[in-house]
Amino acid sequence: MLTLSLIGIGCGDPEQLTLAAIRAINAADLVLIPRKGTQKSDLAELRRTICSDVLTNKQTRIAEFDLPERDAGEADYRKGVDGWHDTVAATWSQAIAKHLGHAGRVALLIWGDPSLYDSSLRIARRLVPLPTIEVIPGITSIQALCAAHALPLNDIGEPFLVTTGRRLREGGWPDGADTVVVMLDGGTAFQSLDPEGLQIWWGAYLGMSDQIVMSGALAEIGPRIVAARQQARERHGWIMDSYILKRRA
Amino acid sequence: MLTLSLIGIGCGDPEQLTLAAIRAINAADLVLIPRKGTQKSDLAELRRTICSDVLTNKQTRIAEFDLPERDAGEADYRKGVDGWHDTVAATWSQAIAKHLGHAGRVALLIWGDPSLYDSSLRIARRLVPLPTIEVIPGITSIQALCAAHALPLNDIGEPFLVTTGRRLREGGWPDGADTVVVMLDGGTAFQSLDPEGLQIWWGAYLGMSDQIVMSGALAEIGPRIVAARQQARERHGWIMDSYILKRRA
Repeated sequence: MLTLSLIGIGCGDPEQLTLAAIRAINAADLVLIPRKGTQKSDLAELRRTICSDVLTNKQTRIAEFDLPERDAGEADYRKGVDGWHDTVAATWSQAIAKHLGHAGRVALLIWGDPSLYDSSLRIARRLVPLPTIEVIPGITSIQALCAAHALPLNDIGEPFLVTTGRRLREGGWPDGADTVVVMLDGGTAFQSLDPEGLQIWWGAYLGMSDQIVMSGALAEIGPRIVAARQQARERHGWIMDSYILKRRA
Repeated sequence: MLTLSLIGIGCGDPEQLTLAAIRAINAADLVLIPRKGTQKSDLAELRRTICSDVLTNKQTRIAEFDLPERDAGEADYRKGVDGWHDTVAATWSQAIAKHLGHAGRVALLIWGDPSLYDSSLRIARRLVPLPTIEVIPGITSIQALCAAHALPLNDIGEPFLVTTGRRLREGGWPDGADTVVVMLDGGTAFQSLDPEGLQIWWGAYLGMSDQIVMSGALAEIGPRIVAARQQARERHGWIMDSYILKRRA
């Protein structure tokens, strides 16, 4: 039978790997590395580095495969995501059949943690036949962001909300918390907020050698983050960032 | 000068240690291990195991010290916590002065991640003189819980709220999210909710050999979790658990 290990590898620093992740990589018969054309943001190079750093099992094979592009033309966001997950599942199935067959252990190295804003678990459940699914947690960009700023995420006994750039842009400051973590922000959704009384802790390329962090009053630091983000994106050709906002009474 | 490393060690499984955590432990001149009387819940034994497993630097010393008890008699919760943090900071200072002196690298092994419902960063900022503070992220019980259930934490593009048992008990279902993670619940605060339409993913002793997980419709599984939790607490003398609730339309 087939076992699929979804292995969290942290968010860029190979030292964020856990011992459990290293063991799971070495327990695999096949490690699959997805490529998205020539995009650096596919992090294929990070996955190759991790395999070459920690793989000691000579029996483990590594195979790369091309991920399909997501159809950006679908107006219904959820329908577009659903269709894309079906397509990716078919691609995984083909790669597994080609490089492993119907039995054994296949591993995918998941940026961050497989449970946090990641599609792998949903895609894995679409595989036919359904494999046994195993999840190895990994350090997320939220944790790397807090560590870089030496910031306690929650205030004492207080809740925090984790949301997306899209939600923040469309809905403003969310109900239910004075601390908000913003993920998956393709732009700078914090610009849609009244900055009065807000503090921001921002980071890009967290855990990587290009890591940038900035923090302060949103009114003062916000415009500087917008400029720094634009420059970094132009220099690297891509950017991955996230941030924490806190509202003070 | 003094550097204080707050090193996330994960939530019970020594394999949740990251390579960065292992490096930071070995870079320390002194690893301090706090004890709370004879309570198993102080996890001193886990910290000793981790040091004996990964410490290869012969120069690194390990010292244990007794943590003061928190004054449960203080009616004002925040004031009680503040006073307790002052007391713990004084205890850390004494232990550092006794075992290291005024310069070098001291490490504390933090259960989970230093940024998530943990006081270490707040206590560290009270040390006089203020050390350089370094944070190494660790796997949290939220991630271990999701991994154990192979559960995506967020729904696609949706937010989630992380809160405490106290908040849930006092405020009911919080605004702002249909997925809620409940931490620091000394009891079973989910019992205060109308279970209609709610699903629960619960886990105790996550990552440890005694790990228990249960999931399902809250109406059906809730009472079974209450019973299992009570039994486990009696058997082990302590319990540490957390859970995720999702509300379906």
